Amino acid sequence: MNGLTLQTKYQKVKSYFKIDPWKIIEEGFVKENQKWSESIFSLGNGRMGGRGNFEEDFSGQTLLGNYVAGIYYPDKTRVGWWKNGYPEYFAKVLNSAHWHGVRITVDEEILDLNQCALHQFRRVLHMDKGYLERSFLVELKNGKTLEIQSIRFLSMAWDECGAMQYTIQSNDDHTNVCIESILDFDIRNEDSNYDEDFWTFEQTGNEQNMLGIHCSTKKSYFHLCCSTLHKFFLNGAEVVENYSKNGTERKQSILYKTSLNAGDYIQLEKSVVQISSLDYTSQELLSVGFEKCKSWANIPFEQRLNDHSNIWSDIWESSDIQIGNDVEAQQSIRYNIFQLYQTYTGKDARFNIGPKGFTGEKYGGATYWDTEAYCVPFYLGTSTPIVSKNLLLYRYRQLDKAIENAKKLGFINNAALYPMVTMNGEECHNEWEITFEEIHRNGAMVYAIYNYVNHTGDKEYIKDYGIDVICAINRFWIQRVHFSNPKNKYVMHGVTGPNEYENNVNNNWYTLYIAKWCLEYGLQILDELKKNDTLSYPFIMNRLNITESEINQWMNVSKNIYLPVDKHTGLFLQQEDYLDKEQLTVSDLDPSVRPINQNWSWDRILRSPFIKQADVLQGLYFFEDHFTQNEIKINFDYYEPRTVHESSLSPCVHAILACRLRYEDKAKEMYHRTARLDLNDYNNDSEDGLHITSMAGTWMSVVHGFGGVKVNENGLHINPFLPKAWTSLQFMIYYMNRALKINISAFKIEINNLSEANVDFHYKDQFIHLPGKDCFTAALT
Amino acid sequence: MNGLTLQTKYQKVKSYFKIDPWKIIEEGFVKENQKWSESIFSLGNGRMGGRGNFEEDFSGQTLLGNYVAGIYYPDKTRVGWWKNGYPEYFAKVLNSAHWHGVRITVDEEILDLNQCALHQFRRVLHMDKGYLERSFLVELKNGKTLEIQSIRFLSMAWDECGAMQYTIQSNDDHTNVCIESILDFDIRNEDSNYDEDFWTFEQTGNEQNMLGIHCSTKKSYFHLCCSTLHKFFLNGAEVVENYSKNGTERKQSILYKTSLNAGDYIQLEKSVVQISSLDYTSQELLSVGFEKCKSWANIPFEQRLNDHSNIWSDIWESSDIQIGNDVEAQQSIRYNIFQLYQTYTGKDARFNIGPKGFTGEKYGGATYWDTEAYCVPFYLGTSTPIVSKNLLLYRYRQLDKAIENAKKLGFINNAALYPMVTMNGEECHNEWEITFEEIHRNGAMVYAIYNYVNHTGDKEYIKDYGIDVICAINRFWIQRVHFSNPKNKYVMHGVTGPNEYENNVNNNWYTLYIAKWCLEYGLQILDELKKNDTLSYPFIMNRLNITESEINQWMNVSKNIYLPVDKHTGLFLQQEDYLDKEQLTVSDLDPSVRPINQNWSWDRILRSPFIKQADVLQGLYFFEDHFTQNEIKINFDYYEPRTVHESSLSPCVHAILACRLRYEDKAKEMYHRTARLDLNDYNNDSEDGLHITSMAGTWMSVVHGFGGVKVNENGLHINPFLPKAWTSLQFMIYYMNRALKINISAFKIEINNLSEANVDFHYKDQFIHLPGKDCFTAALT
Repeated sequence: MNGLTLQTKYQKVKSYFKIDPWKIIEEGFVKENQKWSESIFSLGNGRMGGRGNFEEDFSGQTLLGNYVAGIYYPDKTRVGWWKNGYPEYFAKVLNSAHWHGVRITVDEEILDLNQCALHQFRRVLHMDKGYLERSFLVELKNGKTLEIQSIRFLSMAWDECGAMQYTIQSNDDHTNVCIESILDFDIRNEDSNYDEDFWTFEQTGNEQNMLGIHCSTKKSYFHLCCSTLHKFFLNGAEVVENYSKNGTERKQSILYKTSLNAGDYIQLEKSVVQISSLDYTSQELLSVGFEKCKSWANIPFEQRLNDHSNIWSDIWESSDIQIGNDVEAQQSIRYNIFQLYQTYTGKDARFNIGPKGFTGEKYGGATYWDTEAYCVPFYLGTSTPIVSKNLLLYRYRQLDKAIENAKKLGFINNAALYPMVTMNGEECHNEWEITFEEIHRNGAMVYAIYNYVNHTGDKEYIKDYGIDVICAINRFWIQRVHFSNPKNKYVMHGVTGPNEYENNVNNNWYTLYIAKWCLEYGLQILDELKKNDTLSYPFIMNRLNITESEINQWMNVSKNIYLPVDKHTGLFLQQEDYLDKEQLTVSDLDPSVRPINQNWSWDRILRSPFIKQADVLQGLYFFEDHFTQNEIKINFDYYEPRTVHESSLSPCVHAILACRLRYEDKAKEMYHRTARLDLNDYNNDSEDGLHITSMAGTWMSVVHGFGGVKVNENGLHINPFLPKAWTSLQFMIYYMNRALKINISAFKIEINNLSEANVDFHYKDQFIHLPGKDCFTAALT
Repeated sequence: MNGLTLQTKYQKVKSYFKIDPWKIIEEGFVKENQKWSESIFSLGNGRMGGRGNFEEDFSGQTLLGNYVAGIYYPDKTRVGWWKNGYPEYFAKVLNSAHWHGVRITVDEEILDLNQCALHQFRRVLHMDKGYLERSFLVELKNGKTLEIQSIRFLSMAWDECGAMQYTIQSNDDHTNVCIESILDFDIRNEDSNYDEDFWTFEQTGNEQNMLGIHCSTKKSYFHLCCSTLHKFFLNGAEVVENYSKNGTERKQSILYKTSLNAGDYIQLEKSVVQISSLDYTSQELLSVGFEKCKSWANIPFEQRLNDHSNIWSDIWESSDIQIGNDVEAQQSIRYNIFQLYQTYTGKDARFNIGPKGFTGEKYGGATYWDTEAYCVPFYLGTSTPIVSKNLLLYRYRQLDKAIENAKKLGFINNAALYPMVTMNGEECHNEWEITFEEIHRNGAMVYAIYNYVNHTGDKEYIKDYGIDVICAINRFWIQRVHFSNPKNKYVMHGVTGPNEYENNVNNNWYTLYIAKWCLEYGLQILDELKKNDTLSYPFIMNRLNITESEINQWMNVSKNIYLPVDKHTGLFLQQEDYLDKEQLTVSDLDPSVRPINQNWSWDRILRSPFIKQADVLQGLYFFEDHFTQNEIKINFDYYEPRTVHESSLSPCVHAILACRLRYEDKAKEMYHRTARLDLNDYNNDSEDGLHITSMAGTWMSVVHGFGGVKVNENGLHINPFLPKAWTSLQFMIYYMNRALKINISAFKIEINNLSEANVDFHYKDQFIHLPGKDCFTAALT
C-alpha cells in the first residue's frame, strides 16, 4: 500500500502517484508518504513557494515549509577545524510565514488528518493550470462525516500574491464547525543547528478580516511582511461580521463558527501577500502589504486563478514537450518543466535556482554550478535570451566576490574562483574538499557564456561582460596547475571532480580538460577580437590589464596540460590512480547497500570505484564534437557500469550519451531515472525537497538526448533518436532568437521555423537553410 | 619589549621568559603576552589543573581555565555534511570552577591588572618544588602603592586539593582594603559553539568561612563539587569573624575589609577541594567536600606546600635530566618533564594525556595516538612499568568500542579501529580525512605493546591483553587493503598519514609499513606461542577465533603489501604521487607565510610539498633497526628540508634521526624547537595551551637522540652523541625493572646500575652484562 516496488534491476524505487499526462495525482492517503508528497505537491511562482503541506492539523511526520526568494540567514560556519579561506557564514534559505494553515474544530474534535479516518482522499497537482487541489471525506469520532475540498495557488500573474479556497460541507445536521484561519510566523528552520529562531518580530497590524505580521531576519536584516485577508461564506453567501481573533505576536488567527445541517457548506477564501525589504522600505511593509492584500482579495477568486493559469498556458506554449504513447514519460517531463518554472521565471536577475527551489531546506544557498551546467541550457532552449542573460549577469555581477574568494585562497592577479554555493557571490560552503577543490565549477561559468553566445548570437555579451569573467577564471587556472618534472607537463593536484565520491585527487580528467578548454576559448576570443574588432581589442586588453606574456602563459599551459589516459585502452582516466582501485561494477553491489551514501562510510565510498555522477562523461557531453564516436563509446562503456547516479545531475548526461551511442535501453532507463527521480523517489531523499536543478537535466535528456539537439560554435545540430516505444516527440527550441518547433515521429521529422526570419542549422550531415515560417521535413529510417 | 626576535633562520620566535635551570621567570609584565604566559605558568597534579591566571581582575585578553580530569561534555557533532560513521558527539574538556579568584578594592578602586601601573612584576614557576609565585608593586590612581605576593599550588600529595596564599602590604597610611575571595562556577567554555552553558547548578552549602558549589554537566551527568575555605590574617594574626558573603548560586564570595597603615599587611589563605561523581555519590559531594576541605585547611600552609614539594623531589629523583653548560637547554628539558608529570602521574587508569593537558580547551578529547607514540616511551623510561601498563590497559579496556567503531565503517570479523580522539573509547572526531583515514593510529597501539614488552619484559601482558588488541587491528588491516591489478600488490587507498598536510592519499609509506609490521608482529607472537606455550596457544586461538586461513591471509598480505619507493634514488615515497608535486623546500618559503597553516588555504597546503610532521621519518625512527644508515640518510636528507614542523610532534623525531646521522647542528636546532616550542611560542599558538604530549617527544629527543638509547626486541642499545656545546648529559632510564643512571661527558660514559639485579645491554657494538649496583664506564672519543 505504501507503493514499494522493486522496479529496476539493482534498486528499489517507489511507485505511488498516479500516471496522467497533465496531473500528479495521489489517490488514497498513506501517512508514511506525507513528507514525500509534500515535496511533490510543492507550489511556487519564482518569487515565493512552499511545500504541499495540508492546511489542517497533521500530527504525523511533516515539514512545514514556506520560502521567499532572496531571503536568507547567514548561519554560523565555524565548526570543526577551521581552515583558512573558509567562508564567513553558511547561508540558509529561510523557512518563513506559514500562511495557509487552518484549524478545523467539529463538535469539539480538532481535525487531525493523522488521526481521522479519511475516505475518497485525492490530491491533484494541475500542471496545466498551476494549482493544487485536494478533496476527501472525513469521518469524525462521533460518526459524522464532512466533505472537504481545497484549492491553492501562488499567482504567476501577481507574484507577491497567493490564494486558497477551502470548503467544508456537512453530511449531518447540527454539526458545529469552527474554522480558525491561521497566519503563523513563529517558524523555525528544520535545519537549524540549535533550533534557534532566525526571525525577529517587528510589528503586527490589525484590520477587520485581515492579519499581518512583519518580521526581520537576524544578522542579515531582511524584512518580510506577510498579510492575509480572510473571507467566510455560508452556502455561497459571504458572512460579514466581526470575526474573533486569537494569538500572539507571531501566530495569529481569525475564527468563524457556525452550525451546519446536512448539505450546508462553509467556505474560507484566504488571500496572501508577501513583500519584503528587497523591494520596499521596511517602514512601509505593513501598510503596503495590507493595501496590496485588499486589492488582491478584491478580485474574484475564479478570475485570479484564471489570470494565473493564463500565464501557465503561455509557458507551456513555448516549453511543452509531447511524447506519443508513453503517458508516464509524458507526465514526468511536464512535471520537471513545471517545477523549474515554478522556481525561476527569469524575471528578476537578483534570484537564482536553488537545488531544492522552494521545496525544502537542504543544501542552503541558492546558486550552484547546476545553474550554468543544467539550467542555462534549459532556459536557452525554452525562453527568449533575456532569461539566460539574467542568469549570466548574476555571475558577472559577482565577479568581484569571486576574485576576493580566490584571493583568500592565495591567488593573485585578479584570478577568480566562483563559489560552490552562494547567495550573493560570497562562498557559503565549508567542506575543504568541495569549497577549495571542486574548482571545475569555474569551467561551467565559461561554458555557460560559450553556450549562451552560440545559442543567441549575442557576441556583444562577450565584449561587455563575458571576457572579464573568462580572463579572471583563466588567471585562476594558470596558477592552479604546476609543472611536474616526472611528467614534463602541467598537472593539477588536489581536486574534486564532478564525481564527489572521489575527493582531493590528482589530475581529474574533467577538470583538466575544461581548464585547457577555457584557456583555448579565452585565447580564441582575444584572437578574434584582435583580428576583427580593432576598436574594442586594445580597450579590453587595457581594461583587464592583459599582457602579451600572460597570453603566452595561457598558450603554454593549454598546450602542455596533462590529461591522464590509459595507454592500453584509450580510456580517459577520471583521475590518475583510478585503475588502481578495486575493479568492481554496480552489478557487484548488493541492492541492500544502495544508495551507498546512506549505507557506507565515507572512506569506503572514496576508495571504491563507484561514481556518484558523470565526470569524464560530463566532459564528453560538453565537448562532444571534440571526440570520436569510438572515444565516447570506450568511456561510456567503462564508466556507466561504475556509476551509481546518487547525484540527481548524473542520469541525464548518461541518457544523452546513450542516445548518441544508440543504446536505447540504457537511454530509456536513464531518462526514467532522471525524469522520475522525485516522482519515484529514486534516491530515497525526495522528502527533503525536490531535485530542482536536475529537472533541467531531464529536459536536456529529451531535447539534447532523444531530440539530438546540440548547439556549439558551428551552429545548431539536430540528429534525433526516437526510442521505439515512443510514437512521437514534439518540442520547441529557441535558437538565434528563432522559435523552432520540432516534430519527430518514427518515420519523419518536421522542423518548423515559427519565426519570420530564416535560420541555418545542420540536420545530421546536411546543412539546412530554412526560411521564416517554413518547415523542413525529412524521412527517418 | 614584547620579546619578538628573529631567532631561527626561517622563522620568527619569541623570547620572553628568563633562562634559569629550575625556574620559569617572567620579569616585568607585557599585557599582550598574558594568554601565552597563562599557558606557560599552568599548574596541575594529574587530577586537576588550570592555567596561570591572575587571581585579581584582569580586563585584558585572558582565558580563565580550570579543568578536572575525566569530566567532559559530549557536544554536538552534526555539523556540515554528515557522513555515515561519524561519531555521536565531540567530547569537550570542560572548563570548570575558577577557585582562586580575588577582587581587591582599595579606597574604592577595583584593582584591574590591565589598567594599573605595575612595578617590579615577577612571576616564577618553581619547577623543583612545583608552585607558582608572583609578586609586584602596584600603583593606584590616588598615588598610593601596595606590595602584593601570591603563592599557589595544586597538591601532588593530596590530589583533590589545592591552596593559595595571597598577601597585600600597604605602603601608605589609611588605606582601605577589601579582599573579596571568589568561587566562580558560572563558567563557559571558550570553545563552545553558541556560548552555551554546559553546567547545571545542583546545590550550594553554607558554612562560616567556606563556600561550596556543586554542579553537574549537561548530557554527560558528571557531578563536580568545588569547596573553598578562606582564612584572613592581619599582620600575621588570623582574623576570626563573621565574614560577609555575596553572590548568586554559581558565583559566591567572602569579603574581608580593613584599613591599613604603612607596613601593615593582610593575607588570604584559600584552600580548595574538588571532588566528583567519578569517586563519590552525587548526594554526598557537598558534605564530603566540606569535610575534606576543613581537614585540608587545618594543615599549616607551609607543611602542605612541603608535602607537595617532597613528591616533586621524588619525581625529579627518577626523571631529572642534567645538561652541562647549556642553561637554556637545561631549563627546557625540565619544563617539559615538569608539565608532563603535572598532567599525568599514572596513578589512575581511567585518565589519559590530552594534547593540552589542563592548560587549554583546544582539541577536546583526552586521548590521541600521541599517548602511544610519545608518552608511553617517556613513562617507560622514567617510571616503574605500572604507569605505562595503565596507559596500555586504558586502550585494552576500550577494545570493544574500537571494534564497534570499525563496524560502523563497514568492517567485519571483529576488526578494530581505535578512535583518533576519545574520552571513553568512542570516536569524538568528525573530519572524514582524519576520523576515517588517519588509520595509522592503529599501528601505534601495537607499537606501544611491542615497546612495553621490550622495555619491561612483561610477556604475560601479550597473552592476557595484548594479543586481543593486535589481532583485532590486524583484522582491520587486511580488510583495509585491496589488490591492485596494475601493481600486482596489496595497496591502501584513501589514507591520511602522520603528515596531515596531505589528506586522502594513496599508499602512504608509513601506514603501509606499520600495517605490514603489525601483521608480521602478530604472526611472530602466534608462532612463538605455538612453539613455546602449548597451553596458552590453543586457548588464545580459541578465544579470538583465529583460523588457519586467517593466518594465511595475514601472511599473504604482509608479504605482498606495496611500499612506494623511488627506483632512481631509493627514497621511500611518503605517498604514491609525492614526486609529482612542485619540488620546493622550506628555504623557498617567505618567512612571512609561516606557519603556513595560519597563512595558506588548505588546498594550497595540501598540494604543496611541505610536510607538517615526520611521516616516513616517523617510520624510520620506530623501526630504525630495519634500515641501513644510508637509507635513513637518503630519506632524512630529502624530507627534512621539506618539513615545516607545524605539528609539535615533529621536531623530536627529526632530532633523534639527526643524532643517528651525527648532524649536530640540525639535532640541536630540532631539540631547541621541540624543547622550547611553548617557551618560545614557535607555532604562534601557545596561548591556546601547552603542547603537552609533544613534551614527551622532547624527552625522547634527549634520551633516544643525544643519549642514543633504543630499546627493541634485541634489547637495550646505548650509543650516545653529545653535542659539543654540552659538557655533560645525565639521565635515568628504567629498563627491565632496573634503574640505570647514565652520565655522558665529552670523554666518557658511565652507566650505573642502581638496582640489585644485573642487566644486559648493548653499548655501541659491545654486549654488556652489568651486575647489580655496578657501573660500566667507557671512554668516548
